[in-house]
Amino acid sequence: MKTAPLYGAVQDDLSRVEAVFDEIRAANLGALSQMLGMVLGGGKLMRPGLALLCGRFGTYDLDRLVSLAASVELLHTATLVHDDVIDRADTRRGRPTVNSAFENSTTVMLGDFLFAHAANRAVETGSLRVVELFSRTLMIMARGEIRQDLAAYDSRQTIRDYLARIGGKTASLFATACEGAGEISKQPEEQVSALREYGYNFGMAFQVVDDILDFTGDEEEMGKPVGSDLMQGTLTLPSFLLMERSPNGNPVEAYFKAPSPEKLQAAVKMVRESGAVEESSRMAKDFSARAIDALSALPDIADRETLAELARYILDRQS
Amino acid sequence: MKTAPLYGAVQDDLSRVEAVFDEIRAANLGALSQMLGMVLGGGKLMRPGLALLCGRFGTYDLDRLVSLAASVELLHTATLVHDDVIDRADTRRGRPTVNSAFENSTTVMLGDFLFAHAANRAVETGSLRVVELFSRTLMIMARGEIRQDLAAYDSRQTIRDYLARIGGKTASLFATACEGAGEISKQPEEQVSALREYGYNFGMAFQVVDDILDFTGDEEEMGKPVGSDLMQGTLTLPSFLLMERSPNGNPVEAYFKAPSPEKLQAAVKMVRESGAVEESSRMAKDFSARAIDALSALPDIADRETLAELARYILDRQS
Repeated sequence: MKTAPLYGAVQDDLSRVEAVFDEIRAANLGALSQMLGMVLGGGKLMRPGLALLCGRFGTYDLDRLVSLAASVELLHTATLVHDDVIDRADTRRGRPTVNSAFENSTTVMLGDFLFAHAANRAVETGSLRVVELFSRTLMIMARGEIRQDLAAYDSRQTIRDYLARIGGKTASLFATACEGAGEISKQPEEQVSALREYGYNFGMAFQVVDDILDFTGDEEEMGKPVGSDLMQGTLTLPSFLLMERSPNGNPVEAYFKAPSPEKLQAAVKMVRESGAVEESSRMAKDFSARAIDALSALPDIADRETLAELARYILDRQS
Repeated sequence: MKTAPLYGAVQDDLSRVEAVFDEIRAANLGALSQMLGMVLGGGKLMRPGLALLCGRFGTYDLDRLVSLAASVELLHTATLVHDDVIDRADTRRGRPTVNSAFENSTTVMLGDFLFAHAANRAVETGSLRVVELFSRTLMIMARGEIRQDLAAYDSRQTIRDYLARIGGKTASLFATACEGAGEISKQPEEQVSALREYGYNFGMAFQVVDDILDFTGDEEEMGKPVGSDLMQGTLTLPSFLLMERSPNGNPVEAYFKAPSPEKLQAAVKMVRESGAVEESSRMAKDFSARAIDALSALPDIADRETLAELARYILDRQS
């Protein structure tokens, strides 16, 4: 866990979320237990952290808020697990693969198991509106997943397509974590909207930074090769910005037309040197600023500053 | 659709369930649309049919009952789709494979998409208790799926393990279809229990017949080879009964130890000729009788006889 100074007043509550995960990890799943241990919890717990913090602007039953926080992380983890199959499928297109540690059957079953737990925890919030929010998010994410697959190796996409895609894939779940917490803690409607707005923009900034790090990050810290998105046929913001700058031919399009390791290297290099990374960072900063702006609708308590700090923190992360 | 005379008074309501599926099928999913068209609806709609019938012992809002009926079928279809990946994984064990028409990535994404729709429809029932029932069933099914995988090619299992497994994999969802309908139609607690009891035993009978047909059915009508369960390492009731009769060696265990097409044929032949099929049929009949018994707690209206007929009908089906 690297959450130490990040989550202010809810640092201790996070251990209750971890306890939920411990319980799930204790299930006897044979060969699946190993993978479960690897994927569940132990990370930065960004989504549960936000949920717990957002609840503090109202009054809540901690058990229910913890259920929401755990549910959101479980849903996130379930989609990560299934992505393992979906991404690996790209080997069939003759490109190198990123993840290949587990059998397809393991990943499908484990993902379904985690979806089931996510649904159970959502129900435990006792709020039909939270469950509804949750199921709507599940739909948005499933559609986003399909949209990303349909768009693979398609260089006719636009930045607008990209933003819609990461909105569905990433930001929607952050928004749900925050909005759901507002709901459970019985906050006035305008605060709930502000929390949703914060979560959504936070998620957008988070994903843009992720996509930048795919070009600029350290392979070891990231645990995946530089340029892995391109390898899987996925265009992200830095690539789009490069393509905009050189509409009459660029190494990204060249790589998509006929992939090779040399062309991949050339594309990564060009993206890094073209200023596309810097412009992407500016956009991430914009989203982060919008998230912080949304906080002005909330009471001025210490947790508000913690949320603002988090929105700044994610801009500087290196992995 | 082969539902014509089966569903009595709710025959027309079923078309509303089909309309829900039409709407889902209309989504633009690119390459996934073909598979979606193949898997969703168009079958006997057993689970929605039961849900609609069970609602008639109380008073209900038809929209909500249709949402439940659609939800249950969507959940069933989602698990079918994911089974496609899970079953196919068995090729890694060097055995022949049953399903291989679609890419793993397609099946994972489509299954998740269907889970999302199932969750949405469950929420549309407006009943947190139904959603809870639904999410508990999802968990039971996910565990059942994992349990089946852990037990593959393990001949130390017992009939008891088998019954627990099909209870989780099949009967629990039938039970939820019936109990959920009782819930939505505001029936007294003892009727809701009776409906659950009916659904559970109905599902057990249904699955046992399914497992018998895997040995005795017509390959063309079934759309899969005879003995496909054994091929995937799955022991079902007829095999267990044969193994009980010949504890000191039998062709099923021999096939599991060193699979070959010849040994598979020998195992299927022995199961068919040993009386294990007849005994399995008796057990299916028992479950069906228990389902019919449970109906005595319900008002004596025509729908009760329709439910009883259905419980008899499934014993005679040929595919």
